[in-house]
Amino acid sequence: MNDQRFAFALTHTDGSARRGVLTTPHGTVETPAFMAVGTQGAVKGVTFRDLEGAGSQILLSNTYHLYLRPGDDLIARRGGLHRFIGWNKPILTDSGGYQVFSLAERRTITEAGARFRSHLDGSLHLLTPEKAADIQAQLGSDIAMVLDECLAYPSTPEAARVSMEMTARWATRARARQLELRGGPVETVHVTNPGQAQFGIVQGGVFPDLRIESAQRTVEIGFEGYAIGGLSVGEPSPLMYDIVAKTTPYLPVDRPRYLMGTGTPEDLVESVARGIDMFDCVLPTRNARNGQLFTSQGRINIKNARYAEDDGPPDPECACYTCRNFSRAYLRHLFNAGEINASTLNTLHNLHFYLDTMERIRNAIAFGRFESFRLAFLQRVSRPSAGTDPAP
Amino acid sequence: MNDQRFAFALTHTDGSARRGVLTTPHGTVETPAFMAVGTQGAVKGVTFRDLEGAGSQILLSNTYHLYLRPGDDLIARRGGLHRFIGWNKPILTDSGGYQVFSLAERRTITEAGARFRSHLDGSLHLLTPEKAADIQAQLGSDIAMVLDECLAYPSTPEAARVSMEMTARWATRARARQLELRGGPVETVHVTNPGQAQFGIVQGGVFPDLRIESAQRTVEIGFEGYAIGGLSVGEPSPLMYDIVAKTTPYLPVDRPRYLMGTGTPEDLVESVARGIDMFDCVLPTRNARNGQLFTSQGRINIKNARYAEDDGPPDPECACYTCRNFSRAYLRHLFNAGEINASTLNTLHNLHFYLDTMERIRNAIAFGRFESFRLAFLQRVSRPSAGTDPAP
Repeated sequence: MNDQRFAFALTHTDGSARRGVLTTPHGTVETPAFMAVGTQGAVKGVTFRDLEGAGSQILLSNTYHLYLRPGDDLIARRGGLHRFIGWNKPILTDSGGYQVFSLAERRTITEAGARFRSHLDGSLHLLTPEKAADIQAQLGSDIAMVLDECLAYPSTPEAARVSMEMTARWATRARARQLELRGGPVETVHVTNPGQAQFGIVQGGVFPDLRIESAQRTVEIGFEGYAIGGLSVGEPSPLMYDIVAKTTPYLPVDRPRYLMGTGTPEDLVESVARGIDMFDCVLPTRNARNGQLFTSQGRINIKNARYAEDDGPPDPECACYTCRNFSRAYLRHLFNAGEINASTLNTLHNLHFYLDTMERIRNAIAFGRFESFRLAFLQRVSRPSAGTDPAP
Repeated sequence: MNDQRFAFALTHTDGSARRGVLTTPHGTVETPAFMAVGTQGAVKGVTFRDLEGAGSQILLSNTYHLYLRPGDDLIARRGGLHRFIGWNKPILTDSGGYQVFSLAERRTITEAGARFRSHLDGSLHLLTPEKAADIQAQLGSDIAMVLDECLAYPSTPEAARVSMEMTARWATRARARQLELRGGPVETVHVTNPGQAQFGIVQGGVFPDLRIESAQRTVEIGFEGYAIGGLSVGEPSPLMYDIVAKTTPYLPVDRPRYLMGTGTPEDLVESVARGIDMFDCVLPTRNARNGQLFTSQGRINIKNARYAEDDGPPDPECACYTCRNFSRAYLRHLFNAGEINASTLNTLHNLHFYLDTMERIRNAIAFGRFESFRLAFLQRVSRPSAGTDPAP
């Protein structure tokens, strides 16, 4: 960690697409950026050495999981998350809201916050906007997220409004707490990264007017960056793209924009085209463990019998360790045999593909060729071709 | 693969301990050597890149597993095991005998061979001495092992004699088949590594006279190297050391000696002291996955609550990736969280410790200091000290 404070600078724009540099206490991140998901302080299947080798500049980790195990107090006593897990580059932590929504048991959402039982041991917890800020202050991530309510899809406009308005009130409380923590010592909270930034989250379901209102209210509170939450939850992709396109104009040009939990390679390209700077998603890592590989020619499922004697690499255009050294036939064997290396080699490839895609996006923006890149990319990866499987 | 044939040259001796160089079609191996176990063509939890980085010069793979899945025919069509799995250094394959003994269902051993049902699908198979040679010829390992019968421990001298004698007759048949395969094309067998060597296996339980007779009969047949099998199967360590000490004098000085399936770090040092050149064992890899770490100060079990807030490395004297970057507290968290990285980081360390131990053994022999090395090593690793756990 050094004395750098949080900053964001755009270096190029190309239509609505933006290229920039995010500065954090733990170094810089070129945007548009994809964040690999290290839920419990590790990316499943790959070491940090390999993650850095694949080009990862920032890691996402989950507040909900780390709060429950090993606990943010223990991590704070280790000097914070970076030191505990041995990752010295930037880290973004989510607020735990989405995991309460998707993992926790018997949750009740009230104005105070989210009351839930741990999925690990059934213990009872109350996650408030203030508590989420405190936990993340102890973790010492470079970017903390406010607690938001994640609405199920589909929802009525009425339910979406109620939820969006509570998220806005929670955002005010979360910001107040964050500023209090920045102002000086707060009892029981051990701030391990004084340069931590905080991002607000725009909600509002699939209703453009609610999204716009949410964006305006969140910007009014004022954060170092802005996320769009509550998408990639089951709505059709074109609807998501439309919501993104209608929301980004209401976010400040000079602050980073983060589309949470998205998505497929096509989603990344389409969302960059609509002004997004940051992404995270479990797809490349989770699907790798299930045998699905993202390639320059579309998706392949390595379990497929057609690969049993295929001596070619997973992706002939890829330069990752997996593609340089191993065949589809071998990867299929590893998967069928239940070898840990199946997860590792598939994950290495998928992360390389995602991170390489981001680099190509950034280069296309810098050269003012993003639109032609986008069209060529979508044509290639969206359509199954010879030797690849149909997209699911 | 190059034109090198199999060769073995001793470069130093120190008492009964030997240092040498094994030459194979896929490169050389410094001995005494430890072979990491890549049962199904992969070492569980670590990539070949990491395995080489840890200093591994030779890999062991299992005929039984590869024969059943994906099949030696498929591997031969890929050009052999090296090409199929992407490991270009030497490989030793076992004969499958031990796995038939330990894994297969409803096995019956007759003079013809071992009849068994696959543990995967219940299919019926007959593994004969000739068949084991054929499978390994198709795999194209650099060193093939003869099929032997693995006797349960304890056994009577009578049973051990019957078994040893059959192993000797099987060795004669295995050698005849191997020489036939070397002599020219054999129908249905695709020889993928013409430079493959074959090792005989000495059996005889814990009975010195049977071991000596077995050694003499096996040497009489004539192989490129000799293994001692049927130990590390439950007998006390001192008994194993004694059998090794009484057997090696009956093996040719100019051929490599391989103690199969052994063992703990102490076992390696004690067996080198008695004239052994090669080892394999699942201990460093399997125990890593169960949370046990071998260190310069003894074993530690990372699950232990005492490590919850221990910021020190697993082994303060170790230079491996794990010890340079991660704390006991983090490794304990990864283990408790069921993260794949727990297996990977623990395995990386244990293999590094084993391979580093072999290098220190080789250096001690070269400098004529093996006996003092042995005494110091045993004193340190065998006794639990502050911060380490008692040996199990």
